Amino acid sequence: MSTGQEALFQKATQFITQYYKENNLQGLAERLEQVGSQIALRATYDLTEEELSFGAKLAWRNSNHCIGRLFWKSLKVRDRRTLHSAKDIFEDLLEHLEFGFNQGKIKSVISIYSSEGPSRFRIWNKQLIRYSGYLQEDDSIVGDPDSVEFTQICQNLGWSSKGTAFDVLPIVIQKNEETPEWFELPESLKFQIPLRHPDYPQLDELGLQWYALPVISDMRLEIGGQDFRCAPFHGWYMLTEIAVRNLGDEHRYNLIPKIAQKLGWDTSQNRKLWKDKGLLVLMEMVLSSFQSAGVTLVDHHTASQQFLEFCQIESQKGREVQADWSWIVPPTAGSTTGVFHREWPNEVHSPNFFYQKPKWIKTRSAENRASACPYSSLS
Amino acid sequence: MSTGQEALFQKATQFITQYYKENNLQGLAERLEQVGSQIALRATYDLTEEELSFGAKLAWRNSNHCIGRLFWKSLKVRDRRTLHSAKDIFEDLLEHLEFGFNQGKIKSVISIYSSEGPSRFRIWNKQLIRYSGYLQEDDSIVGDPDSVEFTQICQNLGWSSKGTAFDVLPIVIQKNEETPEWFELPESLKFQIPLRHPDYPQLDELGLQWYALPVISDMRLEIGGQDFRCAPFHGWYMLTEIAVRNLGDEHRYNLIPKIAQKLGWDTSQNRKLWKDKGLLVLMEMVLSSFQSAGVTLVDHHTASQQFLEFCQIESQKGREVQADWSWIVPPTAGSTTGVFHREWPNEVHSPNFFYQKPKWIKTRSAENRASACPYSSLS
Repeated sequence: MSTGQEALFQKATQFITQYYKENNLQGLAERLEQVGSQIALRATYDLTEEELSFGAKLAWRNSNHCIGRLFWKSLKVRDRRTLHSAKDIFEDLLEHLEFGFNQGKIKSVISIYSSEGPSRFRIWNKQLIRYSGYLQEDDSIVGDPDSVEFTQICQNLGWSSKGTAFDVLPIVIQKNEETPEWFELPESLKFQIPLRHPDYPQLDELGLQWYALPVISDMRLEIGGQDFRCAPFHGWYMLTEIAVRNLGDEHRYNLIPKIAQKLGWDTSQNRKLWKDKGLLVLMEMVLSSFQSAGVTLVDHHTASQQFLEFCQIESQKGREVQADWSWIVPPTAGSTTGVFHREWPNEVHSPNFFYQKPKWIKTRSAENRASACPYSSLS
Repeated sequence: MSTGQEALFQKATQFITQYYKENNLQGLAERLEQVGSQIALRATYDLTEEELSFGAKLAWRNSNHCIGRLFWKSLKVRDRRTLHSAKDIFEDLLEHLEFGFNQGKIKSVISIYSSEGPSRFRIWNKQLIRYSGYLQEDDSIVGDPDSVEFTQICQNLGWSSKGTAFDVLPIVIQKNEETPEWFELPESLKFQIPLRHPDYPQLDELGLQWYALPVISDMRLEIGGQDFRCAPFHGWYMLTEIAVRNLGDEHRYNLIPKIAQKLGWDTSQNRKLWKDKGLLVLMEMVLSSFQSAGVTLVDHHTASQQFLEFCQIESQKGREVQADWSWIVPPTAGSTTGVFHREWPNEVHSPNFFYQKPKWIKTRSAENRASACPYSSLS
């Protein structure tokens, strides 16, 4: 074996061993011998469907940024490594979306497509459902500022849109180094939730909405030394991701000044606490609207309790939770949640999910921009 | 020179050199020779008043946890190394408090007392002004739960009190290994602010108050290899330290459930966001009350802007700011402040302030408790 093959065999051994041990399976030695032979012969090896499934769940359990890991075992893993065209993948994604949305009672799902060998796929979108952003002549932005560059890419591929603040981008799928194909999602699978505040009907004039399903589609899943670069996954939203970050952040929809204006608040001084008040209104709006729509959403207090329960279970199993405090603590009311008062080691274990350079980024400056701020990447 | 003397000379050299360079002073070589001779002769050296003053300012500038560092140059340094009795120190602290409070227009001040040589002083209090805590027979606590152990220490020394939720502890000063002496602060220097909410007079029934001046009195100041273990210092409060942490934390005054009860909120479910609403009410209450009293207090939005201004100035000077993100980002509305979206290296530079083991902690278990949670230490 070459050094590369030996390194792969080492990673494979680590994962396969964990798989057999945690599941009390027989036949580890034989399986490792088989994997070793495959690696010696063709410098790679095949994960079985069961191994792939367990690996994807472990990747979630190991995700240092994620507060929702209590439910790692319930991940539905769809092994779709045999699909061979962009169109087949798009149609399969429609099934994924419908199954995962589950009429509002969201189930956590990952679909794994081929990204090595003769059919190598990549999804160019950050998320399967996400809004476009349009730079205007006066340098203002309509829509999501974080999508401006990718929206231009879609337009260059021939996509056109209404130009509203909430146009859902097309799904862009690339096979090997071919020109990518784009596909428009049907309206019924965009899962749009109109946002209304129970006490402030005047906010209806803002015409706000958000989507129900946060499907991350640009990360690399690594299991036993193998990379799956086309493996979209989702759970359900935590309230603050939408209300505080996506709608509230100054470099995203920046809605707090608009809320303040509609509600007649004094924004002339920081000490009026209008930003704090605005966050509360946005949170009430999103919570109430998801509840009315019958769609799963977890508030940050409950999510914190669930994460601490996860930590307790892991500890009972003799496993040390790895976590990034700055991601786990919610972006508002942090100290009222139990996670604020805890600390964790923050090593990255395998299997896991990793950022990867978007395929559509060609220029050096765009590369730098893409890696600038980790804090907005998962929202 | 012994290894210890060489190590001290190295630290002294680093600090003295920085002092001469940043202030464009002449005579560095001569001063270093003098310091070297002192260290060779008696294994220590004397900082001049000017060096001590600059060193204390640098310790503030280097404080990784502190968001208020824009004002480091304005620190008033009181060199009181020549005082020789606990009573003299107490009387000097009264002057410090009056000068620092400055009729509400708070000035940042540090007083440095002798903690080496024949007169070694330590102040046992965490802060010069802080509330006691009393464990009740039913295991509930009246006052500040974080003060329960130290309150017992004070009672064992002979202090007695009314037993209210807001009794200011006596100042406990120890010389060498003698029995410490305690001193009651005069009412006029406790700087109590009654807390009232402009819109909710029913909260007056809670009888809340807080003190104006957060004077940290248990940290070790290190300058040029020398330790100053008795060097109380203060700036002014940031709103969230009082409203969110001291009054809001479950393991401190835990007032959010009481606020909710007085205002008739539904606290049966997390998704009612009653904790988020409670924080807002506490913040409005503290802000408004400090403003009515004419006492300096900075809100978290303004403090964040000031810290980013500090970062910009430091960068222009070619200096890299060290900071602990988890301390700098406010405990609520974090993502609405600019600091949330930044990162810093987090090395500890000298001069600096360090935690030290309280003199009154004798048992091993108490030691562990003292080091358990860094997040409540500075509030």
